[in-house]
Parts: sequence; structure tokens; C-alpha cells
Amino acid sequence: MKTVSPVACLPVDAWAAGECSLKTDLVVVEEPLQIKLQYGQGVTWQEKSLTVTMRTPGHDFDLAVGFLLGEGIIDTPEDLLLLRYCSSVRAEERGNVLIARLSPDKIFNLTLPERNFITHSGCGVCGKTAIEAISCDQEVLAPGIPKIRSTLLMQLNRMLLEEQTVFKYTGGIHASALFRTDGKMLFLREDVGRHNAFDKVVGAAFQQDLLPLSDSLILLSGRVSFELVQKAVRAGIPLIAAVGAPSSLAVELAREKGITLIGFLRPDRFNIYTGKDRVIFG
Amino acid sequence: MKTVSPVACLPVDAWAAGECSLKTDLVVVEEPLQIKLQYGQGVTWQEKSLTVTMRTPGHDFDLAVGFLLGEGIIDTPEDLLLLRYCSSVRAEERGNVLIARLSPDKIFNLTLPERNFITHSGCGVCGKTAIEAISCDQEVLAPGIPKIRSTLLMQLNRMLLEEQTVFKYTGGIHASALFRTDGKMLFLREDVGRHNAFDKVVGAAFQQDLLPLSDSLILLSGRVSFELVQKAVRAGIPLIAAVGAPSSLAVELAREKGITLIGFLRPDRFNIYTGKDRVIFG
Repeated sequence: MKTVSPVACLPVDAWAAGECSLKTDLVVVEEPLQIKLQYGQGVTWQEKSLTVTMRTPGHDFDLAVGFLLGEGIIDTPEDLLLLRYCSSVRAEERGNVLIARLSPDKIFNLTLPERNFITHSGCGVCGKTAIEAISCDQEVLAPGIPKIRSTLLMQLNRMLLEEQTVFKYTGGIHASALFRTDGKMLFLREDVGRHNAFDKVVGAAFQQDLLPLSDSLILLSGRVSFELVQKAVRAGIPLIAAVGAPSSLAVELAREKGITLIGFLRPDRFNIYTGKDRVIFG
Repeated sequence: MKTVSPVACLPVDAWAAGECSLKTDLVVVEEPLQIKLQYGQGVTWQEKSLTVTMRTPGHDFDLAVGFLLGEGIIDTPEDLLLLRYCSSVRAEERGNVLIARLSPDKIFNLTLPERNFITHSGCGVCGKTAIEAISCDQEVLAPGIPKIRSTLLMQLNRMLLEEQTVFKYTGGIHASALFRTDGKMLFLREDVGRHNAFDKVVGAAFQQDLLPLSDSLILLSGRVSFELVQKAVRAGIPLIAAVGAPSSLAVELAREKGITLIGFLRPDRFNIYTGKDRVIFG
């Protein structure tokens, strides 16, 4: 079994007080976890993949059990006969596939909860296969273009907040905004879900036939997960800037596909995780 | 078509500076959106429900188009022949079901993206049916028990931050912690996903056969969505306290199931959205 840590150490170009310095940043690790269910009576178990969720490694058994309970698949500890990591997987997938075996007394209604499962986009069952799945059909973006000024970058969040009407009133909503690299805001969308806000922005641009969005930057009010970078790849967006932190797999995918990824964007500073060549400093 | 707003107005008991006052709070609206796909050639269209996502109403077409693009179902605007709200639904579901019809030239591979879709737990296609689906098999909690002191409540987040190791280093992770109502922390789990952190906490308690968690409070480092309240219902947790804001549907479900829901928890103040009778003030 490979050892997994909830944090990963990454080099980062930190821009603050008018200077860019190379630092080391700790980011949260994001890796897919697949939960498989075995159910049935007697000698022949049936097996079904329930979900692939992007999670931080650690307490995986807790996660699987909580998920099974939340989805109504188990009700008592006796309903779960066995929970183990799957060993018949590729080496790099070890620790990312769990098998849960239901008690023979527990009826699993295959049809009932089908639509309830939370599955996620484009996952393999290790970060590498997840990235490979995307790499197949999406080109790597050309380095160094377009460029954006650091002074403009640090103003974007203020521009977002000025326009973000629902957040002002509720304090409980995510926003995504698409900017041209000259600072013009093209679309701003808000949603209770981060992924939805992102989808709304890209969907708006798509309907105006603006894709690929090769001269644009997407600003995210929250953190950056693997899936959000994946959506940027699909839309051809070369720059992602986020108020929050990125995950390990988000940085990996951005690097792989030639996307500039900026995190912790503040009025006076930001971190560049990958794609520094698109930023003009000063 | 019903009119929908991204915000809803709710009464809230706001505790600040040692006093509790009834105020009005605006919360972000959360409602399910179902996206159905029609595909095929010629006279017989095949139809498939792709996803039910919990979203904030508004820009639904953008959301659907962005989702279809992100999932690789469409690539160009020509791939989408038609996008419309479904009219053959119950009145309360109007505006929550979208039909996307693919161009006959566009091949939809039913098997390929099956596991990629983001679907969410227990949704109907309106908030009411979503709540009803849960109400069927989960009892309403008894009011007024257990109780928790407001002074203790306001200390919980500090206790969480002291223990939250990964957040300290990365600034990019969610936490859930289960407390007894006397303030003892039972479990703390961190994850890049809010739902995962919640599942891990409940899964840990479940494995120790502690359910239903009728003397406990769950503290969330972020916002409170419908799905997180749903998970609390399943685990029998009577108190939810969150550092962030709740959604409209989260409050509705908590009220329906007799759960106390507290938002914007700070060292000196908090808002009670429902279930005030479990809080001892002063």
C-alpha cells in the first residue's frame, strides 16, 4: 500500500509587496476514491461501482461508511459485512479503491438509489489516470500567451465583489467571472455550487460562440479543485485565478495542460502555482 | 412558469453582544435542476436523465450548456439543437427540468460518460419533493432536546481551528467536527470536499455504533447545503452549526425534521435559522 499524505509540498512563485519570490507552499491533496459495493446472497456476490469521489486521502473507511449511510444503503453496523481496499488494481491505484460488502440479510435495491450517487467528472481511480483521461482529447495550451499584468490581476477580485449582487445580500454563494486579459468582465455568474457557477459562465460564453476562450481568465471566488481545472481545459481558458487555495491535483492538471493557475489572490499579493510566463510583473 | 429569485427572505434569531433579536436574513436559494438529454436520429428521440444538480435558480440555460460542454456531450453550439424547460411536469416542478436535444449528427455514447455525471443525493425536482423524499423514512426529532449553551457554541470554532491540522498548512480544506453538547469533541475530519468531511465524521461515529447521534452537534467550517442537512437527518444529529451561511432549502429541511440550524458562527455572535429551543442563552 502506498503511503498517502493529506498535504503535498509544491514550489510557488509568491508575489507580494512588488516582488516575486520562489517559495514552498503546502497544498491539500486531492485523489479519487472509488467505492465498490458487493451484495447478494450466498456464493455469488454481485459487484457494482457506486461512486468515484474526489477526496483527500485519510480516513477512507470513515468516508465510505458515512457515504453508504447517507445514501441509505446501510442502516446499522451489522449491514456492513466487510470493508477493505481492493488489491486487484494497478499499483498506482492502490489505496484508491474500496470494496464494501453488504450483509446477505441486507437487500440492496439496485434501481432505487441509482440517481442519488455522487460521482464526479472524468476521474480515473488515481490522479494520473484522471489526468490522462483528459489529456487524450484536449490539447496543451501554448505557453506565454496571452499575458496579464500583475497590477490588473490584483484588482479583479474587487471588480468581482462590486458586481456580485447575491453574495452581498446572503454571504453564502460562489461566483465565477470571465475576464478578457485586458480586464474587461465578460460574464459573471453566481450559484450555491462552485461547479454550477463555473458551468454557467462557460455556458454563457459557449452560447455566444466565444469558445475556445483563449484570451480570457476565469476568476473563482473559492478554492480550485481538479474538476474546475478540467472544466477550464474543456473551454480552452488559459488562466485561472482564485481567491482560495488549489488542490494538488488541480495544480498537476493545470501544469499538464499548460494553464496558468493563481491562488490566494488578494489586493496586494497572489501565488502562482504554474504558468508564470503569462504574468507580467510590476 | 413560476418566478424564481436567487435569494429568499427568512426570519432569523441573531445573537450578538449578549442579546438575541429577531431579524430578517437573506439566504441564497437552492433548488434542484434536472437536465434531460434527447438524442438519436429521425423520428424517435431517446431520452435520458443526465443529472439532478442542486443549484441557485437563474441562468439555467447557461448552466445546462456549460455542464454538457464540460462533460464532453457537446463540443460546438451546432451540437445542441434545442434547449427548453420541460412543460409536462407538475406545477411545482416547473422551471426545474430542462430538456436538451442533441443534433442528429451528434453521436451520444450512452455507455461512455455514464459514471461521469454529477448527481446529487435525494433530490426530487423541486425543493418540496426533495424534502418529501427524506421525510418518508426519517422521523422528526423531538424539540428542545438536547440543549447547548450559547457561550459554548461560540467557542466551538476556536476548538475546531486548534485541532484542524491540514487547514493550518494549506488554507484549502473543509472540516467537520462532531461535539457532544457538553463541548467534548468526538471526531474531527478534514477533506477537500465538504460532503466528504461530513461523511467521514458520521462514518467514524457509525463504526463505533454511536448512532443515532442524538446528544451531538456537528460543526461545519463552511456553508450549509441541503445535502449536508440531509446527511445530518440520516445520522440523527439534532444540531448543526456552521461558520458559513445556509441555503434556503437547508433551512427548510432542518425545520421540517426538527433540526437546530445555526449559521455565521463567530466568537461573539451567530444566527439561528430554526430550532431556537435547543439554545440556552447567556
